[in-house]
Amino acid sequence: MVKVGIVGGTGYTGVELLRLLAQHPQAEVVVITSRSEAGLAVADMYPNLRGHYNGLAFSVPDIKTLGACDVVFFATPHGVAHALAGELLAAGTKVIDLSADFRLQDAEEWAKWYGQPHGAPELLDEAVYGLPEVNREQIKKARLIAVPGCYPTATQLGFLPLLEAGLADASRLIADCKSGVSGAGRGAAVGSLYSETSESMKAYAVKGHRHLPEIRQGLRRAAGGKDVGLTFVPHLTPMIRGIHSTLYATVVDRSVDLQALFEKRYANEPFVDVMPAGSHPETRSVRGANVCRIAVHRPQDGDLVVVLSVIDNLVKGASGQAVQNMNILFGLDERLGLSHAGMLP
Amino acid sequence: MVKVGIVGGTGYTGVELLRLLAQHPQAEVVVITSRSEAGLAVADMYPNLRGHYNGLAFSVPDIKTLGACDVVFFATPHGVAHALAGELLAAGTKVIDLSADFRLQDAEEWAKWYGQPHGAPELLDEAVYGLPEVNREQIKKARLIAVPGCYPTATQLGFLPLLEAGLADASRLIADCKSGVSGAGRGAAVGSLYSETSESMKAYAVKGHRHLPEIRQGLRRAAGGKDVGLTFVPHLTPMIRGIHSTLYATVVDRSVDLQALFEKRYANEPFVDVMPAGSHPETRSVRGANVCRIAVHRPQDGDLVVVLSVIDNLVKGASGQAVQNMNILFGLDERLGLSHAGMLP
Amino acid sequence: MVKVGIVGGTGYTGVELLRLLAQHPQAEVVVITSRSEAGLAVADMYPNLRGHYNGLAFSVPDIKTLGACDVVFFATPHGVAHALAGELLAAGTKVIDLSADFRLQDAEEWAKWYGQPHGAPELLDEAVYGLPEVNREQIKKARLIAVPGCYPTATQLGFLPLLEAGLADASRLIADCKSGVSGAGRGAAVGSLYSETSESMKAYAVKGHRHLPEIRQGLRRAAGGKDVGLTFVPHLTPMIRGIHSTLYATVVDRSVDLQALFEKRYANEPFVDVMPAGSHPETRSVRGANVCRIAVHRPQDGDLVVVLSVIDNLVKGASGQAVQNMNILFGLDERLGLSHAGMLP
Amino acid sequence: MVKVGIVGGTGYTGVELLRLLAQHPQAEVVVITSRSEAGLAVADMYPNLRGHYNGLAFSVPDIKTLGACDVVFFATPHGVAHALAGELLAAGTKVIDLSADFRLQDAEEWAKWYGQPHGAPELLDEAVYGLPEVNREQIKKARLIAVPGCYPTATQLGFLPLLEAGLADASRLIADCKSGVSGAGRGAAVGSLYSETSESMKAYAVKGHRHLPEIRQGLRRAAGGKDVGLTFVPHLTPMIRGIHSTLYATVVDRSVDLQALFEKRYANEPFVDVMPAGSHPETRSVRGANVCRIAVHRPQDGDLVVVLSVIDNLVKGASGQAVQNMNILFGLDERLGLSHAGMLP
Repeated sequence: MVKVGIVGGTGYTGVELLRLLAQHPQAEVVVITSRSEAGLAVADMYPNLRGHYNGLAFSVPDIKTLGACDVVFFATPHGVAHALAGELLAAGTKVIDLSADFRLQDAEEWAKWYGQPHGAPELLDEAVYGLPEVNREQIKKARLIAVPGCYPTATQLGFLPLLEAGLADASRLIADCKSGVSGAGRGAAVGSLYSETSESMKAYAVKGHRHLPEIRQGLRRAAGGKDVGLTFVPHLTPMIRGIHSTLYATVVDRSVDLQALFEKRYANEPFVDVMPAGSHPETRSVRGANVCRIAVHRPQDGDLVVVLSVIDNLVKGASGQAVQNMNILFGLDERLGLSHAGMLP
Repeated sequence: MVKVGIVGGTGYTGVELLRLLAQHPQAEVVVITSRSEAGLAVADMYPNLRGHYNGLAFSVPDIKTLGACDVVFFATPHGVAHALAGELLAAGTKVIDLSADFRLQDAEEWAKWYGQPHGAPELLDEAVYGLPEVNREQIKKARLIAVPGCYPTATQLGFLPLLEAGLADASRLIADCKSGVSGAGRGAAVGSLYSETSESMKAYAVKGHRHLPEIRQGLRRAAGGKDVGLTFVPHLTPMIRGIHSTLYATVVDRSVDLQALFEKRYANEPFVDVMPAGSHPETRSVRGANVCRIAVHRPQDGDLVVVLSVIDNLVKGASGQAVQNMNILFGLDERLGLSHAGMLP
Repeated sequence: MVKVGIVGGTGYTGVELLRLLAQHPQAEVVVITSRSEAGLAVADMYPNLRGHYNGLAFSVPDIKTLGACDVVFFATPHGVAHALAGELLAAGTKVIDLSADFRLQDAEEWAKWYGQPHGAPELLDEAVYGLPEVNREQIKKARLIAVPGCYPTATQLGFLPLLEAGLADASRLIADCKSGVSGAGRGAAVGSLYSETSESMKAYAVKGHRHLPEIRQGLRRAAGGKDVGLTFVPHLTPMIRGIHSTLYATVVDRSVDLQALFEKRYANEPFVDVMPAGSHPETRSVRGANVCRIAVHRPQDGDLVVVLSVIDNLVKGASGQAVQNMNILFGLDERLGLSHAGMLP
Repeated sequence: MVKVGIVGGTGYTGVELLRLLAQHPQAEVVVITSRSEAGLAVADMYPNLRGHYNGLAFSVPDIKTLGACDVVFFATPHGVAHALAGELLAAGTKVIDLSADFRLQDAEEWAKWYGQPHGAPELLDEAVYGLPEVNREQIKKARLIAVPGCYPTATQLGFLPLLEAGLADASRLIADCKSGVSGAGRGAAVGSLYSETSESMKAYAVKGHRHLPEIRQGLRRAAGGKDVGLTFVPHLTPMIRGIHSTLYATVVDRSVDLQALFEKRYANEPFVDVMPAGSHPETRSVRGANVCRIAVHRPQDGDLVVVLSVIDNLVKGASGQAVQNMNILFGLDERLGLSHAGMLP
């Protein structure tokens, strides 16, 4: 039984971790911290958890208690894991960070996009980017895992087969992405109100979104280190959960069977589902499930490939992927606690 | 391992049964029928089930194949179970009917509300109304179970403690109920279109809804056979899942501790959750979960009691309750396959 | 041309006032105030207004500028109109207050429900409750108008015909009301987030909501001063706009033709629409329109009457009703700027 | 006063035409036809119109009655206007067709995409494509106007400035478009149900959508007859109204001031609003309004231009644009009946 701690469990990735771990047969949440909610039972904050986690309440973060865990998840705003990860690693505790703190390998670039100096550059070398479909072997041996962002997960998984095979012009990639509102978190912001987001669609951060350098870094690796030209346009969509990445790339060789390429690339991946040719994945098909569902098209037989890639931003795009990393890290069956189907309708 | 058959699995209660049974450790779906979709793989109709039920396809209903199952669920429009239940029982197969066919004990009343003669009045005597919180012992020995409707489940569970204790004036009960759109099923009807139901609220069937006699029958039983005066007003609410019953009753004795009464009534019920005094249950707290969550209020310390009762109409209001009945019927742990938390947000 | 000022125009009732007044042929908004947004053009805050109100920007509230208007609307949180109304009246400016400041005639009761002393009790005597269907004559001569709340508008208009005719047992009234999320305003509150309110239904404030005393006061007047027993249960509904009041009353005389009663009561009202017998009004039918749509039922021919009453909370429940009051006050055609149809779908 | 007839007014473009024309001071709807609903009052079908159009009921289509109108709108499925337009023109009645019947100039291409022969190829020469921003002069003199589709309106208006200026590589255009569900019409289709479309996002018709040739035809004209390479991916979005086109083009000259280019192109257009640099238009800002709102970006100062273009699919994307065409055609002020602001929130 893996003893789990969670730092900052009051947001949506926190409650989703709790929901998933409640059905995990080999993990037990023993501590969950929140400065603002210390003393509150988790089920009093999240009534869906009533009947689960009896007795578990938020507590003030404390290195000693956290350090007694086998693994600590950070479900915090950026900057928090910087401050605490080092101490936990020193205590022998594994760290799985759902925030952006260790996703970028370059501390300078991190500082530029997040508007503050990187707080733990000395840990960057050993931080493993927790995309199992790329780094499974490194994850097995890792002490510190950076769980990919939601847009980066859907987008990288959609582009990878093309880039790894050298089939796409890496200088002209476009990711037109649509996200549900939960991606903006549980903070009290006018822009996330029901009356501001329902019955409307808009793009945002077209000038530059923090997930852009993260996606670019992953695609560069896939392209064998080649520089990548990526235009990334995120959109706020009137739904709670879900990311739909619509990806555009120019193929350099039209004769390749893309359907076969994608199927082969993900043949052994438990959580990537390449749909039959001609399919259009819906985000609801992965609602609540740790699955990335992909379809690949080449409209009008041109040289422009359209990849459709959907995930639940809170599961495969955050907490589910975090649990998947934990399973790999502790040598468990990768599917433990994650094998349930999506909720449709 | 219980061998399960499903008749008519193309609707929402069908796909929800499949979702729940996919994670049930002691049940296996061996046949699922649909005349219109015969030959289609279930995962081709419901992409959330891809990776589950490999090889399971819809087939034309056939008594022989169904009769080889331990239990057959009917997830059909009314009238279908009338026609087939008898033969299945004769074959030694248990029947759990999610439709309205065996819910009313009086064939005449059934005929009046459903506009056609009752098709199997000879089975009414042995049909058990599958509300475990009332009929658990009968369910254990049943051959034929009528799973309660969604409105009736939320409404009866909210009124029961008051009526069984003789505390409410049974002649003046009001159930103001709000349902998500999935309650109307997956049929192609203009009234269920997104553009007709989103961003709007309306009452319907104020004159008389088919669930009225079913609720009345259950409440009469709870009231010790006394006649019950019930006004039932259903409302169509812009959400997919969820029922919120707001129940009004006049108490005949203001001195009783209602909170204690409700807590005691449901103390041993695994799927009824009485919330702390002053609570307001949200339907999202039970989304996807087999739970009825209840709060009881007496505003301004008057004699009018307000009970708030929420369920997921497709789970505790249909398919989850059906699985709960199956568990009881086959002597399994009642929680098998049903212990997961609701999905929030 | 009526010169209009608006205090506190950054909330939803503010932008709705601007939308309605933009198409009003006899009114011109000359000043709109907001301390926090001073200097910002209104169209920069509300892009739907681009092309309208060119040059109009928020300014710091200033009695001199406001006092030069013919009428000033308060679209502010409670307490603000208390502080400013007196000075404006002294300057000869009419005041139409959309907040709760002057709705209750009893300063003590106001203090109790709003948790602070009433700030202008000396104005209560002349404040007119701006429900035109009740107080049209007083509105014509008023200097200070308190625009009714949203729940109170829908609920009073539904109960009035019964109470005025002495047909309902006034001691046992129930108002089960459903409101869209915009009723909670544009404040950044977790409880109003999309991810907290979408796909869910809940009751709130069952113990006592601030609109309770307001509704009770209006119903008492309608009942000829008799004490009124009212249970009021508001519900948060996943839609932006709309209130659906489902009202329950016991009739003391079953022989009365309720349909005729309602039709006669509102025969000359331009903004109350009694639907044909058997109807179920939808909130979307009044979306954006200054209409209250009502249907009256007596299910199963019992003595319990069910009245269904719908409005758009931001129009007939706030800004539209405010403009209607302005039209009456200034001797204009009551329908000016308010005659457009609701937006469906 | 323009005498208006409407053929096929039971769908969403029909009710929207009625809503807009109800507030039009120079037009009067004298006949509206529907075979299936003949005899039904329009307000009985569309309760938002109660109090408007008293006495107007659907009637069986009849050339004599329609031919007595000054103009007839077709709000019908494709094929219907083919059959009737000729006779109406012969009777001296103008025809404004909201369907796809006369949008494509090439009868062969029409037949290919619509799966049936073109029914009135002899009228194609005089049919004017009713995009006022391109064809205002031709519209003034037209007898037969083809109102552009919803996707084509948002997409062409976004691309036009770039193509007309020869600034974009016309061979590599991408239109990633998101539409509300009302775009699919009021037909009873499973795919348009609330429970199928809410809380989900999906692409559809990636292989080829009927609006592709229409958009391509318009862009070719804008590009001076050059062949255009366009990838068009429509997405179904969980909202009733709204289209958000996200357009990608490669500029051939980075030195051009795109903001100025767009502002100049639409400086005199009453219904195209170029937002300030850096803006992100929201579909809700045009809800119910006849406006196309556009912003232009060049992320990371690269050569890829991103144009964001939003409309209400039922207004500027259909019925509003039809009324705009009528105004131009009859020499009225182009803004008549169309000058109201969008409804936000």
